[in-house]
Amino acid sequence: MNVQSVVLVDGVISAFLPVDDRGLMYGDGVFRTLRITDGKPRWWDEQLAKLAEDCARIGLLAPDVSQWQADLDQLSSNLKDGVLKLVVTRGSGPRGYLPPDSPLPRRLMRYDASAAHIIPLTPVEITVRICSLRLAQQPRLAGIKHLNRLENVLARAEWTSPAIHEGLLLDQSERVISGVMSNLFIWSQNRLLTPRLDECGIAGVTRARLMRLANAQGLEVEEVTLSLQDVFDAEEVMLTNSVMGLRRVARLETKFWPEPVISRSLAALLDA
Amino acid sequence: MNVQSVVLVDGVISAFLPVDDRGLMYGDGVFRTLRITDGKPRWWDEQLAKLAEDCARIGLLAPDVSQWQADLDQLSSNLKDGVLKLVVTRGSGPRGYLPPDSPLPRRLMRYDASAAHIIPLTPVEITVRICSLRLAQQPRLAGIKHLNRLENVLARAEWTSPAIHEGLLLDQSERVISGVMSNLFIWSQNRLLTPRLDECGIAGVTRARLMRLANAQGLEVEEVTLSLQDVFDAEEVMLTNSVMGLRRVARLETKFWPEPVISRSLAALLDA
Repeated sequence: MNVQSVVLVDGVISAFLPVDDRGLMYGDGVFRTLRITDGKPRWWDEQLAKLAEDCARIGLLAPDVSQWQADLDQLSSNLKDGVLKLVVTRGSGPRGYLPPDSPLPRRLMRYDASAAHIIPLTPVEITVRICSLRLAQQPRLAGIKHLNRLENVLARAEWTSPAIHEGLLLDQSERVISGVMSNLFIWSQNRLLTPRLDECGIAGVTRARLMRLANAQGLEVEEVTLSLQDVFDAEEVMLTNSVMGLRRVARLETKFWPEPVISRSLAALLDA
Repeated sequence: MNVQSVVLVDGVISAFLPVDDRGLMYGDGVFRTLRITDGKPRWWDEQLAKLAEDCARIGLLAPDVSQWQADLDQLSSNLKDGVLKLVVTRGSGPRGYLPPDSPLPRRLMRYDASAAHIIPLTPVEITVRICSLRLAQQPRLAGIKHLNRLENVLARAEWTSPAIHEGLLLDQSERVISGVMSNLFIWSQNRLLTPRLDECGIAGVTRARLMRLANAQGLEVEEVTLSLQDVFDAEEVMLTNSVMGLRRVARLETKFWPEPVISRSLAALLDA
């Protein structure tokens, strides 16, 4: 079986999901997206740990690591380079917002081989625009990769030009938070800075890894409040996610950063 | 066929939905919930009009009224008292937030007869608590009944006692917005007041009808900014939605309103 895309629903290959799933009805669930290289998921343990953390944040019983592992084993003969998506929903439920007494969470594992053809096309130096949508501030859901992603959909729909690789998102208080599908880092006065994500945004696994690895290298790493001016004034601007890794921002609207400063070392650190 | 619950997916009875549906992956869709009485949907035209409005707000092509009508005709021999839910998603799509070039929206119609047994049990005079969750403010999504409903799920999960019928929701700026599953009205100094919904909340069809009908009766009706104190100080507090109609709040936390003031007339107005 040489698949381009395959989905396991609770461990069974399926193209369908019960229509009463609360993931569909309310976005009542969480997910992770990660890279498969040489047939192996990258940073698997960290991804599963963050998924379990996010489940706990919305009161969802996380599937056992052994279940994800069994799913992965089932797909492993088909895995080449690609993207893996893990989803946990609160499962099926009757009408109404109230979660069932004993919900039976549903897990999905989706593998896309086709995405692998797209990733190498993303240049190391990317062009970024500023989105007009402003993220809502909701501490209860901040940092979680949950299924309520209409803001990202609307922000991503703001541009279609393939010359633009990513959009920068600010919150309602005009603080810079992240890219539409990535986390933000800036290099400024010998410090690696990334926006605090206690009111909105998604705390990515690659973001956490980069902070930890840079810190272990003796770099000063800090979560801060960033204005758009801080970003424009930065010596270097970078975006990360678990699919593309780290990318240097060469252009942000009319601003141009001609040369990398620290991004190559940081990318190497992530890949080591 | 004497059904308790039935779902049509794009006009075909089905218990399943394609797993790549963007409604599931991102909550990329909208819905309405309405009452069926004597086999007929209540305020059908208004519900479909609001659904189309909400579709437009997120750049979604609304299904034609004739398609919903055909779905309804298909179910009509089974319809007794119950609840009908209409859902429109952006349909199937490849990986990624970017909506497909030409998305094929998917429509769901779900009928639940069982809910009819629950509704009469909701007393006319209800007991309400104040939720600790505070709604995020997002003007781009305010008023829309979209599928990103994790805030409602978390707020509804704050209580399980059947003695509590509804929870009151405030936003991050401590303005009172709505119930978890209903809209709020207060009667104060001979005016019918309801929270402005330009930053968060769902603008229900029953809310719009009540505003219009009360206004036509010569009542002063206004959308305003309400504090919790305004609600406690009100002569009467009421909650509305398209399933339960209008309910008078008899208790809000420790506050008790022993007698109806205008709620009976307003409920009669809605039912006329």
